Amino acid sequence: MPKIAHRGEMMPPSPIRKLVPFAEAAKKRGTKVYHLNIGQPDIETPKAIMDAVRHADMKVLEYSHSAGFESYRKKLVEYYKRNNIDVNHNQIIVTTGGSEAILFGVMSCMDPGDEIIIPEPFYANYNGFAISAGVKVVPIPSAIETGFALPPIEAFEKAITPRTKAIMICNPNNPTGYLYSMQELEVLRDICLKHDLFLFSDEAYREFCYDGNKHISALSIPGLEQHAILMDTISKRYSACGGRIGAFVTKNESVLTTAMKFAQARLSPPSFAQILGEAAVDLPLNYFDEVHAEYNKRRDLLVSRLNAMDGVFCPNPGGAFYAMAKLPVKDTERFCQWLLEEFSYEGATVMMAPAAGFYATPGCGKDEVRLAYVLNLEDINHAMDCLEQALKAYPNN
Amino acid sequence: MPKIAHRGEMMPPSPIRKLVPFAEAAKKRGTKVYHLNIGQPDIETPKAIMDAVRHADMKVLEYSHSAGFESYRKKLVEYYKRNNIDVNHNQIIVTTGGSEAILFGVMSCMDPGDEIIIPEPFYANYNGFAISAGVKVVPIPSAIETGFALPPIEAFEKAITPRTKAIMICNPNNPTGYLYSMQELEVLRDICLKHDLFLFSDEAYREFCYDGNKHISALSIPGLEQHAILMDTISKRYSACGGRIGAFVTKNESVLTTAMKFAQARLSPPSFAQILGEAAVDLPLNYFDEVHAEYNKRRDLLVSRLNAMDGVFCPNPGGAFYAMAKLPVKDTERFCQWLLEEFSYEGATVMMAPAAGFYATPGCGKDEVRLAYVLNLEDINHAMDCLEQALKAYPNN
Ligand SMILES: Cc1ncc(COP(=O)(O)O)c(C=O)c1O
Ligand SMILES: Cc1ncc(COP(=O)(O)O)c(C=O)c1O
Repeated sequence: MPKIAHRGEMMPPSPIRKLVPFAEAAKKRGTKVYHLNIGQPDIETPKAIMDAVRHADMKVLEYSHSAGFESYRKKLVEYYKRNNIDVNHNQIIVTTGGSEAILFGVMSCMDPGDEIIIPEPFYANYNGFAISAGVKVVPIPSAIETGFALPPIEAFEKAITPRTKAIMICNPNNPTGYLYSMQELEVLRDICLKHDLFLFSDEAYREFCYDGNKHISALSIPGLEQHAILMDTISKRYSACGGRIGAFVTKNESVLTTAMKFAQARLSPPSFAQILGEAAVDLPLNYFDEVHAEYNKRRDLLVSRLNAMDGVFCPNPGGAFYAMAKLPVKDTERFCQWLLEEFSYEGATVMMAPAAGFYATPGCGKDEVRLAYVLNLEDINHAMDCLEQALKAYPNN
Repeated sequence: MPKIAHRGEMMPPSPIRKLVPFAEAAKKRGTKVYHLNIGQPDIETPKAIMDAVRHADMKVLEYSHSAGFESYRKKLVEYYKRNNIDVNHNQIIVTTGGSEAILFGVMSCMDPGDEIIIPEPFYANYNGFAISAGVKVVPIPSAIETGFALPPIEAFEKAITPRTKAIMICNPNNPTGYLYSMQELEVLRDICLKHDLFLFSDEAYREFCYDGNKHISALSIPGLEQHAILMDTISKRYSACGGRIGAFVTKNESVLTTAMKFAQARLSPPSFAQILGEAAVDLPLNYFDEVHAEYNKRRDLLVSRLNAMDGVFCPNPGGAFYAMAKLPVKDTERFCQWLLEEFSYEGATVMMAPAAGFYATPGCGKDEVRLAYVLNLEDINHAMDCLEQALKAYPNN
């Protein structure tokens, strides 16, 4: 029988994969499972943009331009302008989710054996795209004690080798919720300019920043025009994950030309969701206010409930809709499994993502979990009741 | 400035890319351009399946399962059963177009440096997916004189090295229109079993077979269960190219497990078009009769018009909606450019795909073109009038 690729063996499983069967078993037993484990927002997709798809009048569902409908890219220019990102429609390639934008980035800018520096913990699927491209991920540690701030410049300098081609950040961050400051972004700029590195900036959660802080895009940092590549998506912005629409945005001409060749090879991004994305740019500007206020309340509740528990520490995340918490347990993977397999409180339990899967360094994050606050306030409260009781009841600590 | 990847430089441009600006210029001059150059069907997408999307009632446009909606995969089982392909829904991974199914195939089964044998001419984007995966394409020649039949077994044997991991076919073929016979598929089976190779079978054009010949899927060849991987798509089947829905289908468990890891890394295929694809399986069974009859008439017209021209040879293609023709010119790339830049007949000209871009062997196919019969009969007739006149008028032969 022919064998699968070694590359395939290297692909890591998703950080919650192992737990899924236990969650299913718990549900079969009649236990309610509060899903704080994945970044699938519960927020309704705006009706106006769903209607745009319903009313689309195409006779033939044709391939779009490989870079996406020109009309959509022109609309996106407006959207980016509002967000202080000054690009033209030829600097945008519409992609199949932010996922494909990341893939295009590593494929276009990096060869097998090249290295990409990523502060850890990081979005676990970066590993999959790096492995696809034969690229080596070099993690540098950020720590829960500092709220996962950017590691000091020395940590980057130490990690840089002749094979380093890029630094990747996610801002605001999944899984940590950390929002980078202008000062931190300037540190990154200086490193990138000094060592001639690309800065890949995953800004999937741009809209979700709290405490009055403004998001700063890598594409609006002066001096970084040729180095910055923005990986974007409408998945979280409009609660439109199933649409599969993102964007690859850069001012670097040769990167654009190269990424377009990968875009042409796969023909085009999905048409229906491009229509949705185009309509979304015309949503009333106050659309985000309500969504933002909702997430803000959830964050406050979740974080305060967590920090009120014995031995739990959860730094207040500045953005996205995730929080990382340190728990008074030795191995959160075992604890999360136990929660699903053996525990329930008032008929319910909690599913969280063990944080080890977000670290590339073996042994890191074993006492941390990631929680996504994608449930309503009442459910978050119940979920926290469960967690609180569970920590008290957990035997093998 | 940081440099793009070497891999990016290796990505070949699309076979018609260079001609696009000339076509645009011709249109600006007021010349009508008959597009026989790309495989974008003009056939209307069935209203019933567009309506399924219009009437879909989702509150939240969620990620689907990474393998696609279970309901859709179960529907696909019915579809495949009707086509003599016996699989269950866990053997199907719904992909973002056939394009992604091909990418999953090379990523899951092949490592950098591994070799894949493909009869040439072949669908040019295979190069892009191979380059993405660091895989080497080893072409073996099929010839217009034999109508592009499968190369003799000796050609395969000679091409096999210790790095050979797979053979890839497209059946019926793009660009040649060739439909493989059971006998030919058995030859492929024997080679794959003898050398333990995967057989990648791109069956994008399964529905389009003429002259009463039946399509035989690689997945229904006895003995090849662990070796065959089907790369499928609804793009051409239902004229739904912009939906971006395909499928990766195999009975090989370890390949499935591995491909699922790549599928999970990119989260999910597009939801809207999965709804369309699911509805499509319930189209009346005679849906294809009309489409089929239409393509059949177009093929007959195109091929007979071509063969009636001085010095032109066009083997009758058994399937798909492409024909390859040998023209009495030295360099079809120059000729196709000339058609757009300098020629017109009754205010119109023709755009075709120079065949050299479908060959991996340098110098091959220089006097051949690929024509896609995706225009109505009247337009094909006019286009052939243009071509006939152009061949008479072409100076630098
Ligand atoms: C940080 C980050 N980047 C990228 C993605 C990819 O999202 P999509 O492909 O849906 O745009 C996600 C999804 O969860 C994410 O959290
Ligand atoms: C032979 C062949 N395979 C695969 C594809 C990919 O099509 P899609 O990604 O739209 O399914 C095409 C499109 O033209 C094709 O001709």
